[in-house]
Amino acid sequence: MIYADNAATTKLLPSAFEAMKPFLLDEYANVSQPYAFSQKAKKALKEARKIIADCVGSLPDEIFFTSGGTESDNWALKGVVLSDNTPKTIITSQIEHKAVLNSCLALERLGHKVIYLPVNREGVIVKEKSPCQAKPDIPLYERGCGLPRNLTTVHNYDNEIKIVSVMMANNEVGTIQPIKELCEIAHKNGAIFHTDAVQAVGHIKFDVHELGVDLLSASAHKFNGPKGVGFLYMKKGTKYPLNDGGAQEFGLRSGTENVAGVVGMATALKYNVENIDTNISKLKTLEDIIINKLTEAKIDFIRNGSNNRVPGNVSLSFKNSEGEMLLHRLDLMGICISTGSACDSKKTQISHVLKAMQIPEEYAKGTIRISLGHNNTESEAKSIAEALIKILR
Amino acid sequence: MIYADNAATTKLLPSAFEAMKPFLLDEYANVSQPYAFSQKAKKALKEARKIIADCVGSLPDEIFFTSGGTESDNWALKGVVLSDNTPKTIITSQIEHKAVLNSCLALERLGHKVIYLPVNREGVIVKEKSPCQAKPDIPLYERGCGLPRNLTTVHNYDNEIKIVSVMMANNEVGTIQPIKELCEIAHKNGAIFHTDAVQAVGHIKFDVHELGVDLLSASAHKFNGPKGVGFLYMKKGTKYPLNDGGAQEFGLRSGTENVAGVVGMATALKYNVENIDTNISKLKTLEDIIINKLTEAKIDFIRNGSNNRVPGNVSLSFKNSEGEMLLHRLDLMGICISTGSACDSKKTQISHVLKAMQIPEEYAKGTIRISLGHNNTESEAKSIAEALIKILR
Repeated sequence: MIYADNAATTKLLPSAFEAMKPFLLDEYANVSQPYAFSQKAKKALKEARKIIADCVGSLPDEIFFTSGGTESDNWALKGVVLSDNTPKTIITSQIEHKAVLNSCLALERLGHKVIYLPVNREGVIVKEKSPCQAKPDIPLYERGCGLPRNLTTVHNYDNEIKIVSVMMANNEVGTIQPIKELCEIAHKNGAIFHTDAVQAVGHIKFDVHELGVDLLSASAHKFNGPKGVGFLYMKKGTKYPLNDGGAQEFGLRSGTENVAGVVGMATALKYNVENIDTNISKLKTLEDIIINKLTEAKIDFIRNGSNNRVPGNVSLSFKNSEGEMLLHRLDLMGICISTGSACDSKKTQISHVLKAMQIPEEYAKGTIRISLGHNNTESEAKSIAEALIKILR
Repeated sequence: MIYADNAATTKLLPSAFEAMKPFLLDEYANVSQPYAFSQKAKKALKEARKIIADCVGSLPDEIFFTSGGTESDNWALKGVVLSDNTPKTIITSQIEHKAVLNSCLALERLGHKVIYLPVNREGVIVKEKSPCQAKPDIPLYERGCGLPRNLTTVHNYDNEIKIVSVMMANNEVGTIQPIKELCEIAHKNGAIFHTDAVQAVGHIKFDVHELGVDLLSASAHKFNGPKGVGFLYMKKGTKYPLNDGGAQEFGLRSGTENVAGVVGMATALKYNVENIDTNISKLKTLEDIIINKLTEAKIDFIRNGSNNRVPGNVSLSFKNSEGEMLLHRLDLMGICISTGSACDSKKTQISHVLKAMQIPEEYAKGTIRISLGHNNTESEAKSIAEALIKILR
């Protein structure tokens, strides 16, 4: 089997599994308890928090463990918006992960306003003037007018703009956003800035303090850690509770700590960050193999996303093809990839990301996402390209 | 080491670890993906849901996987109360776990009303007339007037009573509540019934359909499953979302499924339920050893809780003693137990549970909780009693 769906999930790093084992088997104490038996688990939790903080450039007590990226995103958005009863405006983009978009929809149902920023053909947030006439006093990033109504709500600039949430790297096409710049604009306008960095953490280099973000979401299983664990970076002074209860995670996210999961996450992240240059360069080679082979074979395709994209992401739209068909044919050949589009029983639907990027329909329908990881080899990259050529010719 | 703090957390069952291993190491596919590689994980998730459903008497699609008991409790209460914008009344008890009590406080801050039911000396919900004059048309369980103000809010019977949340078994003293009866009263008054069964699942026999509850919370690590995973039973037709996102868990709790955790939880629950009679009888023997030895030694103590309590729970209040001192002395002797009271740096505080039960202060301060599990032996029970006698004499 060739596994090339690393943006969906990754194989647990063997060393992460080994690091988890003692906390699954022997050091099972509840870290909230004060006796000697809990000390090793408590120490491991503390060390893991420090490792993760070092990997993203934060302080240890700015790292809050969660059950994964979706929880982190829900926490960030709902924590901030529901912190009091005043109506608020959320600014996000049209190409966010569903964890952000559906949290926004849930908040809209509770009476809050959401503005969905458009993106250009490469998936980058549009900052130039939007087609409709915006009030002169509103910030640059308030766009969305004149865009498809399904993701664009009626604007209401009377509410306080409370939070801006823009993903660091898109999960479908890999486009990396200018987070630092967007964050500065948000702060100038008095808003909190959140970034869903689920596809970025462990894959690209950044430092949360240098970026200036207030909140950042991550998920362990996207960087060779275990499933069911993630974290939310929350800048010191930015405190919003999620689960109420026994006051774990500095009183903001209660629940008995998943020590094994957290230790596995820290081990995997540390490995990925330490090897990030090697991995980025390896993944670039693998990407090039696929792109070059398809180009040489004169296959008609678009490579989606911007040049500044998350390493290993190869989103391809083949002219007059069907993503589902490609996925199933590749599956039969032992190759795991993903479609860029969700499908229902009746017809292939084009994903909200490709729609927002205005990828021409004859290409968008034939979209697949190959997401390579550091476990992939050059020979696997060749096989993927050859398999695609065989199917498409 | 003698581990007698099984109400805090339990040792992972070796067979649960073995069941988890393939899903941590090899079958790492994201179960939302449609290719062949995800089939084994998908099948395991489905089987685990069926096993858990069978263990609690529900249908498989009434079981929703979460990150643990705290999340399940938060989901139940906030899901129901925040499902729309109308003000609501929540009825709960004074002795709930902090996951319920602090969720209630969070909802109070958002403008909802909470009524905290008092309990008797044994920790059982009081249904007889409360000291203050209640309106004749309000249901039996609406009590709390005349009780300590820190847990009792001002009543407002104009709001709709939306949800009643009473725990199945108390975590400090083990008291089991008459859930079926309370649930019937709630339903007669048009309210939804939730029970925090974190201390009960895998430890006492029940059937959710027979009890009639609408929502039930459980946590894997309390019944020898892994940490970081739990479930919420939600009766068919009772659908409230928690995390918004990729629509996992029937669209109600998004986030990539923690297959290994869920499989470990199902394995542990199945084992505990299959061995429940043996375990209950064994734990009764161990409890008796401790109680008899202390009685024979003429130690002055109260055993807290009702006769109908969760097996293995031995909550003891020693006259003119200090829980923290007992915990630390036992710790030095290699015995892990818990105090019935939280402590701060200045003084030993009596827990909200013991306060609600009106345990006399000279006993309440000297409270410890010994919670035995099926891994404990008769010789360990003897050692615990002997250690206590040594300290207390």
